[in-house]
Amino acid sequence: MAEFRKDPILRQWVIVGTERAFQPSDLASSAERETTEPCPFCEGREAETLPEIAAIRTPGTLANTPGWQVRVVPHKYAVLRIEGSTATTGGGLFEGMGGVGAHEVIVESPHHTDHPGVMSVAQLASVIWMYRERYRDLDRDERFKYLLLYRNHGRAAAALLPHPHSQLIALPIIPKRAIEELQGARQYFVREGRCVYCDIVRQEEADRARVVCENDAFIAFAPFAAWCPFELWILPKAHVASFGDLDDAQMRPLAAILREVLGRLHAGLADPPYHYVIHTSPYDNNVGHFYHWHIEVIPRLSKVTGFEWGSGFYINAVPPEDAAQYLREVTLPPSEEPT
Amino acid sequence: MAEFRKDPILRQWVIVGTERAFQPSDLASSAERETTEPCPFCEGREAETLPEIAAIRTPGTLANTPGWQVRVVPHKYAVLRIEGSTATTGGGLFEGMGGVGAHEVIVESPHHTDHPGVMSVAQLASVIWMYRERYRDLDRDERFKYLLLYRNHGRAAAALLPHPHSQLIALPIIPKRAIEELQGARQYFVREGRCVYCDIVRQEEADRARVVCENDAFIAFAPFAAWCPFELWILPKAHVASFGDLDDAQMRPLAAILREVLGRLHAGLADPPYHYVIHTSPYDNNVGHFYHWHIEVIPRLSKVTGFEWGSGFYINAVPPEDAAQYLREVTLPPSEEPT
Repeated sequence: MAEFRKDPILRQWVIVGTERAFQPSDLASSAERETTEPCPFCEGREAETLPEIAAIRTPGTLANTPGWQVRVVPHKYAVLRIEGSTATTGGGLFEGMGGVGAHEVIVESPHHTDHPGVMSVAQLASVIWMYRERYRDLDRDERFKYLLLYRNHGRAAAALLPHPHSQLIALPIIPKRAIEELQGARQYFVREGRCVYCDIVRQEEADRARVVCENDAFIAFAPFAAWCPFELWILPKAHVASFGDLDDAQMRPLAAILREVLGRLHAGLADPPYHYVIHTSPYDNNVGHFYHWHIEVIPRLSKVTGFEWGSGFYINAVPPEDAAQYLREVTLPPSEEPT
Repeated sequence: MAEFRKDPILRQWVIVGTERAFQPSDLASSAERETTEPCPFCEGREAETLPEIAAIRTPGTLANTPGWQVRVVPHKYAVLRIEGSTATTGGGLFEGMGGVGAHEVIVESPHHTDHPGVMSVAQLASVIWMYRERYRDLDRDERFKYLLLYRNHGRAAAALLPHPHSQLIALPIIPKRAIEELQGARQYFVREGRCVYCDIVRQEEADRARVVCENDAFIAFAPFAAWCPFELWILPKAHVASFGDLDDAQMRPLAAILREVLGRLHAGLADPPYHYVIHTSPYDNNVGHFYHWHIEVIPRLSKVTGFEWGSGFYINAVPPEDAAQYLREVTLPPSEEPT
């Protein structure tokens, strides 16, 4: 079992894998080995995955058989498992905790070559609906304090399999970045009496230099202090702290703007590797007045150097104003227009 | 000119490059293009670099000619330049600052294929001596608050040229990671009345499970909450806050332990890409009682996923105890024994 360990200086938690002793061969790319095998996420190969947790299916089809549109399964190489406790470990200066958690894969389509930059808005809306269902379902487990929902696209972004999929990890702790966002947003609220994200939306809407696209419910822009080239944020225009509160009427506008942002990246930058991560409030929280859920899209266009790792201080060669203008002007090929 | 921009939520500074408008071709790997050209860092090609700032030279040789052992030049594609001011920019929610700074390259050897994992301890001691000289020289510029000294090894670690070199960036701000370390160390000092790094050294020396090697003045170990496989720290055993206070008698023991750590990584893991970063106190500081300078070595053996980028929460598949044991047991080939 993996365990949680806390850095005694930075107070930041790390998951340390301890399933078995280290072998140097573990460091060889598992992606290299796996992609030569038949894809376990393709329709018709449902028996190759662990039993499904949830699916959107054609009525009358059985679990773990074809007929699904979106399918959720446990991660085969889960870093955390649902069984176990959060008992404290360690000694002296060092603090640890049992490695309980959930690690699931959301297979986004039965089709191997589909992905959110080219799929139909209706299909992507189904994926987002499933994100919300998993968010709400895992909220029922009292041990979990935070849900990380994210997507890796492309080998350089550490996607293990090319078949379109997202992942989620439910955690018994709140990760460092979420704590930092909550602290920053709380400080702003105390100072200004308003949600900092709402103020950013207003300023970006007025300024427009960093806006890529928008609809009635959402806005997508390159943030002022983007830490990597083409970093993009998608925010709901209305103030909502938790992704779990996304209502049914917002599924389609959210799918439409996510599809447009990823479609413009795909068409304009030759299908770059990227991550996206849903930033939401913790499960058991009282932050509704000052936090604001959103999606951050992080293309992997440049290498991170020692400077960045050592300092937490990033160098971004592409001003967000240039990135936004470039993406606004991308012409989507007719075959890739959102439908 | 590049500029500094502050994230309005995380309060973290980013350097945003604005030398000219973005072109998609900028994203093509400049490394790919450059390595086919003759190496500007090799002895005899001194005219290919900007004029040298400092060098360790055979007496009687002239600047910018052969005869040097270690040579410092301005970075050709500096992200920050020494001319300029730190005038405030931005508006509304957004805070910016002029991009003043220094960005230098420390060429570690006249020989193209040398590097710290295989070079002589005497050569590496000269490199470290030069680090300290640059640290002290840049301390004289009142605009600079922090010096980042770091090394990228290997293409996957973003080294632009294969010729052995380190880099430094002098900054008019203190980077986020340094602030976090200072805060964590201060809190521990307030609580316990001792330096947290001194306590960690004592606990690691007693425990030994994570120690790789040590000498009278320094210890190298895999930290308890290592956030990536084979992360290693090198600490002076005596309490010193600033790298600039490294005294002459410590040059050789520091070179010896750094050489041994990098030599064991090189021999045991097939010359992996890595970064190392010197973590030191800010220039104008009053943190001598609770901060403790050190070197962090970060091998790039695994890909960072969206989970990590989005959360600041890392998964490390190799327990630091296993990493330390593996490195202790590496047999160095006779040709690579430190000399």
